[in-house]
Amino acid sequence: MIGVVVNLSIQEGKEAEFEQVARDLMAKVKASEPGCLTYQLYKSKDGSYVFLEEYASQDDLDAHGKTEHYTAAAPKLGACLAGAPQITYLTSVD
Amino acid sequence: MIGVVVNLSIQEGKEAEFEQVARDLMAKVKASEPGCLTYQLYKSKDGSYVFLEEYASQDDLDAHGKTEHYTAAAPKLGACLAGAPQITYLTSVD
Repeated sequence: MIGVVVNLSIQEGKEAEFEQVARDLMAKVKASEPGCLTYQLYKSKDGSYVFLEEYASQDDLDAHGKTEHYTAAAPKLGACLAGAPQITYLTSVD
Repeated sequence: MIGVVVNLSIQEGKEAEFEQVARDLMAKVKASEPGCLTYQLYKSKDGSYVFLEEYASQDDLDAHGKTEHYTAAAPKLGACLAGAPQITYLTSVD
């Protein structure tokens, strides 16, 4: 499996918009990407956000990035960011 | 849901021992804790490790910490650490 942890800081006042776009994206990923095993947005106590993602394979992660729902949502999510996302890619210990 | 991200640095030469204890713990958690939805160890490109965990509720997270398999494994995992774990607790955006 491939794990992805994405740390995101959101502009003040943009949290509700960000969460709504993320909710719609999560629903579409869960409904249409069987190789995406986890795709969940979380909020941290410091007000920042974290996406926890798990994919069955690198191919599934690559395919996710090319889906219509992801490429449509990415600029909308990006417009809410207060800084560059911090993305960590991980390989499972099986 | 509750998310937990645990960042761990392991002593040089202790990686195999750490991974074996973690594998055994993952198997026991997955077999016996229905409220633990994700419990997976990952390795980062820098050689450190990350546990990604998801629980249906705070009660499930609390119960996990009290299980016999977790309390037995924790000191064995701890003996492999090169420093204090960095633990981030998260709340899902539903």
